Amino acid sequence: MENNVVLDKVVDKIIEQLKLNTINTSLLESSVYSINAGGKRFRPLLLLQTLKALGTDVNLGIIPAASLEMIHTYSLIHDDLPAMDDDELRRGKPTNHIVYGEATAILAGDNLLTESFNLLTKSKLSPEQIVKLVTLYSKCAGQLGMISGQMLDIEATEKELTILELEEIHRNKTGELIVAAIEAATIIANSESHVTESLKLFGEKLGLLFQVTDDILDVTGTTETLGKHIGSDEKNNKTTYVSLLGLDGAKEVKTTLANEMKDILNTLDKDIQISELMEIVELIVNRTK
Amino acid sequence: MENNVVLDKVVDKIIEQLKLNTINTSLLESSVYSINAGGKRFRPLLLLQTLKALGTDVNLGIIPAASLEMIHTYSLIHDDLPAMDDDELRRGKPTNHIVYGEATAILAGDNLLTESFNLLTKSKLSPEQIVKLVTLYSKCAGQLGMISGQMLDIEATEKELTILELEEIHRNKTGELIVAAIEAATIIANSESHVTESLKLFGEKLGLLFQVTDDILDVTGTTETLGKHIGSDEKNNKTTYVSLLGLDGAKEVKTTLANEMKDILNTLDKDIQISELMEIVELIVNRTK
Repeated sequence: MENNVVLDKVVDKIIEQLKLNTINTSLLESSVYSINAGGKRFRPLLLLQTLKALGTDVNLGIIPAASLEMIHTYSLIHDDLPAMDDDELRRGKPTNHIVYGEATAILAGDNLLTESFNLLTKSKLSPEQIVKLVTLYSKCAGQLGMISGQMLDIEATEKELTILELEEIHRNKTGELIVAAIEAATIIANSESHVTESLKLFGEKLGLLFQVTDDILDVTGTTETLGKHIGSDEKNNKTTYVSLLGLDGAKEVKTTLANEMKDILNTLDKDIQISELMEIVELIVNRTK
Repeated sequence: MENNVVLDKVVDKIIEQLKLNTINTSLLESSVYSINAGGKRFRPLLLLQTLKALGTDVNLGIIPAASLEMIHTYSLIHDDLPAMDDDELRRGKPTNHIVYGEATAILAGDNLLTESFNLLTKSKLSPEQIVKLVTLYSKCAGQLGMISGQMLDIEATEKELTILELEEIHRNKTGELIVAAIEAATIIANSESHVTESLKLFGEKLGLLFQVTDDILDVTGTTETLGKHIGSDEKNNKTTYVSLLGLDGAKEVKTTLANEMKDILNTLDKDIQISELMEIVELIVNRTK
């Protein structure tokens, strides 16, 4: 199956879950709005692509991928709130609270997070696998992962960070859900632990690659392709790879990370289709939006 | 074991989960603050008391009860936010956002919700039972339950409701988690479905009993015992049982519900210790705070 066909199924599955006998129209509209706001679907894609690499039926990954995208989307809605980053534009569209108001946006975020776990339990995987996925997602999205990253990020506003502090924020705020996508695939594929460990390391570097590319694009991209205001990091006095290392330095980090990731893939067992994961590396390296 | 001993274990379990390698101190403090703000622990109590009625070891309920209390606490933190009910006082103490600021309060709520599912997967129950509990909690806390109730409540502000509309809000906003406490116990006890159905009906009425008592106490209680400002419902133009039916009418509803609940308990199989659940009814009927 083509990636875009499977990704459409992932989004359909989310919408189906949200439309299931919902009691309140505004809540439904607001939740669906952010899901449909046209993200890159990077985490679902990564989960599905890892399943392909592991030789496992991608259909088994549709619900876990949908659940993860719901968690990611909830985090964006709450992130954009006036009390947090106070963003009015995301992916070229008004943010959730701009359209639906703050109260509804808070609840739509809460809703997507809660329903993500509900959807997860509907998968055809074994109860043991579902429990492992619930543990994984709640760990990566919780106080040991994404939420701590968000807290660190808030506390870091207007503060000059070191490269280590910057990486700690990214590792938590965006990296953990990226690793979760990969680790979820290894749970679905019942991978051996040495494969899981290598792929998690690959995922950690992928999270950083994703972020350094983001920082570079904030300087070199255009508002049109990115769907957000360019130079917003500098305007907000945000420490980024570019502000710390300069544009060339950031590009060097990007190249180093990509090479390290390819090295990890080359150490994997021969039965793993590493080309599927090489594709992901290339996708990020060549990102223009 | 005495109830207060088991309830202390429930709270200890929550604090243990929150303290587990958390990366961020403010997030930890803010999450723990609301857990320690001294609630009635009604949902954990109900879950454990139902387990007793079903003749099942209450220790099996500690983690599920802790998880449910975390969900309840998250909902209170978000409920109190300026964009929502904008409350500054809860249980006699400043609300979370008053102490820690709005951003941290939003994240503390997100954290408690996320970690509630993480904790749930650590229980010693079977994977099948854990999956059922995740399904139950996410359903009752999600768009078919608590979150819809909150949305309906927000939309109802300043609007005169009918008794049916009022009950729909309460059934969702507070009733669903109360039913969840009871249904969780039936999952842990592997109850037969006719027992589960009767107990769920009991739980639905208990949720309404809880609410009508709340409405009555808002008129007859004191700020000191309740830990919140008395007459706040009237001040906020909130429709309540008392505003719709008068104080005597509300008290009549309370008596009727309590009698109906006792009738349900009397139809249960003989091996169920209904006295444990009668205690709960009496506890609510005699509430002064």
